[in-house]
Amino acid sequence: MVESVHRVAACAGDVHGKLTYSAGDIDTTVYLRSAAKPFIAAAVVASGAAARFGFDARELATIAASHNGEPAHVDVVRGILAKIGLDAGALQCGVHAPSYEPAAAALTAAGERPSALHHNCSGKHAGILAACVHLGFDPATYLALDHPVQQRILELCARALGTTAEALPVGVDGCGIPVFAAPLRAAALAYARFATLEGLSDADAAALETVRRAMVEEPFFVAGTGRFDTALIETTGGRIVCKAGAEGVHGDALRREGLGLVVKVIDGGAGRAIPPATMALLEGLGALESSESVALEAFAAPPLRNAAGRVVGVLETRLPARA
Amino acid sequence: MVESVHRVAACAGDVHGKLTYSAGDIDTTVYLRSAAKPFIAAAVVASGAAARFGFDARELATIAASHNGEPAHVDVVRGILAKIGLDAGALQCGVHAPSYEPAAAALTAAGERPSALHHNCSGKHAGILAACVHLGFDPATYLALDHPVQQRILELCARALGTTAEALPVGVDGCGIPVFAAPLRAAALAYARFATLEGLSDADAAALETVRRAMVEEPFFVAGTGRFDTALIETTGGRIVCKAGAEGVHGDALRREGLGLVVKVIDGGAGRAIPPATMALLEGLGALESSESVALEAFAAPPLRNAAGRVVGVLETRLPARA
Repeated sequence: MVESVHRVAACAGDVHGKLTYSAGDIDTTVYLRSAAKPFIAAAVVASGAAARFGFDARELATIAASHNGEPAHVDVVRGILAKIGLDAGALQCGVHAPSYEPAAAALTAAGERPSALHHNCSGKHAGILAACVHLGFDPATYLALDHPVQQRILELCARALGTTAEALPVGVDGCGIPVFAAPLRAAALAYARFATLEGLSDADAAALETVRRAMVEEPFFVAGTGRFDTALIETTGGRIVCKAGAEGVHGDALRREGLGLVVKVIDGGAGRAIPPATMALLEGLGALESSESVALEAFAAPPLRNAAGRVVGVLETRLPARA
Repeated sequence: MVESVHRVAACAGDVHGKLTYSAGDIDTTVYLRSAAKPFIAAAVVASGAAARFGFDARELATIAASHNGEPAHVDVVRGILAKIGLDAGALQCGVHAPSYEPAAAALTAAGERPSALHHNCSGKHAGILAACVHLGFDPATYLALDHPVQQRILELCARALGTTAEALPVGVDGCGIPVFAAPLRAAALAYARFATLEGLSDADAAALETVRRAMVEEPFFVAGTGRFDTALIETTGGRIVCKAGAEGVHGDALRREGLGLVVKVIDGGAGRAIPPATMALLEGLGALESSESVALEAFAAPPLRNAAGRVVGVLETRLPARA
């Protein structure tokens, strides 16, 4: 028996805006949330901060991450802050317990409290602070929409989306940063550009390539233990580079196909609906080898377990017809 | 900007099956989950166990509860088990941390681990065990569908729904108990009967009245601090008696109007969509006084806050036209 139903809008297209797949409303603007992080990280790279402070692949992947707050993630963020002469007190993302439950439990068992370093966005905040320090901008007000670092970020994101910063509707994200909205159609274009590095200025392409290489080299630092994004990048050997966002957003750069795929779970049920929906779409697009589908099976049809560990149901995806 | 959309099916009707309101598909079966608990608690009362062990209003409300796992809830469940000569080891609901975060934090701070007593369904399990002990049924196998206590529960629920136990599709709930499905139309009938005590055998009506009185007298024990069900029963002085279920189900007995209202959030987004949707429906039905609407305002349009505590959005409900 079907108990609950998540509706999904999705769109796959190339750098010319040609759509390979479309389902649902792809022309209404949607907040891209953390699916914008690879482009935000690229703005940090484009600022010159990554070269100046010698950020390695782990640090760049963590700047683009929604991480689990595992000890290795926290260490990397602490390291970024040390390199730029700041500490956790400079992070204005707020505090939440590590997303990875065993990491949260270990913290509690050690009698420690979560800090801003454990926030899933702490790497992004540290990266933006690095750009501020490098460019001589005020690090105390880095979350303000009119701060020059946020304007640089929005401008790079807008170029990737094929629009202008002024045209982007902006709200406030869960971590306090300005968050912009774009139609799924434009987001798919941006992810196609991320996949191919085509249709971009040389500087933007180089910055996005640096971020992409880091995410491919260090997928654990993009998310963490048990997470879909880490598993998908790792299993495909970086042929697919992806990033989840809150409220059910997912962006996928399909490098072999030269496509960007973007998914939005309409009701925002991110936690459970993104992996099965994305897996079904990737399979529908022929973007996964059969061995990869097998390796990622647990994400395609996740069993639902109750508190006693008994399997009581399963999540399944039904794809509508292709566009 | 609208970021995410939850769809809701809902139905309000009287004991004759006459509908006052209907939206979405109300004829497909839906697992009622914990919205069935008042009827399950009534089966415990009807068994004679409540009279035999002298369960008071707090105990009966807790048997019908999805409680927060606050210390007072845990004490009541422990007390029920003591009265029937069992302990927490007899509970087969599994273990989860208290739903109320401060209670979970206090437990951790005291160096204690959550037990089955903290499971939101522990009261129901204790009540079912009470019926087993009273009737001489095996308490070790009380979760099996063919156990006589489960058959008695299903039979009472089926009578309230206007059907038979054999006709109810049955699955396994989050706490291991058999969970049945019914169309929203039938669930609204059952809640109308709970509201009016009409259309029932004398024995079923008496048992449901005992449960209803307990929920009205002790609404804290139906849910707990900050919870919508506790607030709605309390604020209306028990004129509305309600019970939430997992995956977005909510049942409301509107005693003044003689109506049952049942809500299902289609995507299962229970945590956030039930209170605003139910509030909009209750207001649409004229079931709330304006002072009550004011008192419950925080549930009607809950602000969404980020990790830093800043309000970044709000949940709002749009009612479709009445049936």
